[in-house]
Amino acid sequence: MMDTDQKEIIHYFKGLQDDICRQLEQADGKGRFEEDLWERPAGGGGRTRILQGRHIAKGGVNFSAVHGPMPERVSKALGVEAGDFLATGVSIVQHPANPMVPIIHMNVRYFEMSNGQWWFGGGIDLTPHYIDQQQAKYFHQALKEVCDRHDPAYYPAFKKWADDYFFLKHRDETRGVGGIFFDRLSDSEHHDKASRFAFVREVGELFAPLYTRLIEDNKDRAYTERELAWQRLRRGRYVEFNLVWDKGTKFGLDTGGRTESILMSLPPEANWVYDHQVEPGSPEAQTLSMLRKDVDWISA
Amino acid sequence: MMDTDQKEIIHYFKGLQDDICRQLEQADGKGRFEEDLWERPAGGGGRTRILQGRHIAKGGVNFSAVHGPMPERVSKALGVEAGDFLATGVSIVQHPANPMVPIIHMNVRYFEMSNGQWWFGGGIDLTPHYIDQQQAKYFHQALKEVCDRHDPAYYPAFKKWADDYFFLKHRDETRGVGGIFFDRLSDSEHHDKASRFAFVREVGELFAPLYTRLIEDNKDRAYTERELAWQRLRRGRYVEFNLVWDKGTKFGLDTGGRTESILMSLPPEANWVYDHQVEPGSPEAQTLSMLRKDVDWISA
Repeated sequence: MMDTDQKEIIHYFKGLQDDICRQLEQADGKGRFEEDLWERPAGGGGRTRILQGRHIAKGGVNFSAVHGPMPERVSKALGVEAGDFLATGVSIVQHPANPMVPIIHMNVRYFEMSNGQWWFGGGIDLTPHYIDQQQAKYFHQALKEVCDRHDPAYYPAFKKWADDYFFLKHRDETRGVGGIFFDRLSDSEHHDKASRFAFVREVGELFAPLYTRLIEDNKDRAYTERELAWQRLRRGRYVEFNLVWDKGTKFGLDTGGRTESILMSLPPEANWVYDHQVEPGSPEAQTLSMLRKDVDWISA
Repeated sequence: MMDTDQKEIIHYFKGLQDDICRQLEQADGKGRFEEDLWERPAGGGGRTRILQGRHIAKGGVNFSAVHGPMPERVSKALGVEAGDFLATGVSIVQHPANPMVPIIHMNVRYFEMSNGQWWFGGGIDLTPHYIDQQQAKYFHQALKEVCDRHDPAYYPAFKKWADDYFFLKHRDETRGVGGIFFDRLSDSEHHDKASRFAFVREVGELFAPLYTRLIEDNKDRAYTERELAWQRLRRGRYVEFNLVWDKGTKFGLDTGGRTESILMSLPPEANWVYDHQVEPGSPEAQTLSMLRKDVDWISA
């Protein structure tokens, strides 16, 4: 049932995974991705790649392309008609060793139904253990440039979407400094499939240069046990977001997705301290105070 | 709006919290519970108590009694009419220091609506890092004895309910060796409110002798870094259960419950290793093989 578009998109995502893994290995300088190939009994499969290196404590770069009859509960959850589906994409989370390097997440994905309905989705967001406003500005500026090349309406809309999505309601905190998030990008007045795909490709290709620079700039910054302790607490928050609020994670776990591939997003270790309080005026307090929606990081 | 029953139940739960804390402090021999009193803006509040001790790495014993108008989304979720509600209970999770001591959870609770509808709920379940069949038998035998004193149908039904409830679908694993779980115990052919309350009291009062004995019997057992590493991985599974599947946790976080009180259940630290494999025939492999529903621990 694959048409040319599907083959091209799948082929592209596989190549993107390869490119990103190569660049992350180079940035790490030591670790190598280990690959698990897996098949989905009902159709399709994936390539899960994990690196445990020098600068990247635990990094996952997943590719998958799954297809087959859509289970009823899934079609209900997505609000689409019954039929055959294809879902493919690349999904990334990197947990750095040095607490001064931020955690990053990127995802690009494509979904199609046998009735012809299709859409792209994805996003990138940054979760610094310690927020550095210059770094957040650099990050958002890069995202905005990519967005603006495709549609001036993209960045404002997708930046807001990320603020709303990467939000821990039970903590009243954003996960980090946000980024962009988008879903169900389909045919519209201004965009056809080629135009949507071109945008998604640029988002995917932005990831490696963006993050390898963040590694490069911060991997040798000094830290002590204090910063490591804070990193473990912030990783706890990352776990909370992914397991409590992240729709993709919940959807995957609830619909029989491959657990180890989905949960590669969890950090190597995380701590919880009851009612942890930060010292007023400390870098930790400053970071907490900036975990807010609707911050204009570019002009800040 | 409080009637005698409500006052009596709340008073009882407060006293239960006091008794349990005293016995846990004694078993720990070093740590003392620290208490946070909190109020719920819309009505009621609680006493959250946390101990970080010698044998108990992190233990929480919460009491709460909240009341007020029932938010619409809550009444929908519970399938009850709109109106005022009261929810009160004691909720406990203990994460031991020694990996040979099991994690334990206990909860007893009472719920009432202004239209007169009421029910009790609760349960106890045990999560050994290393399953010891004798210990599991002792644990289930004690639960069965309490159940049998009130209704011979309780233990089989509530044991099965626990197997189904404390289950990580995405891992195809039970959380531990189970225990008992029950909810919406109300008026029935064989039980009135006094009878249900008497059962719940006995469950609550079983907790301290049961767990202090498990501490006593296992706190001096030898362990190495290997057992500690396994404990951190099993604590990761505990986090997964609580954040992904536990209805009480999700309900609390989603309806504006006090986050720090709800998440006292999380361990002090947890680790995740991608696709971790146990050595065939090892104690870890044996434990994994026993994380199954419908094990008859008493006769095993």
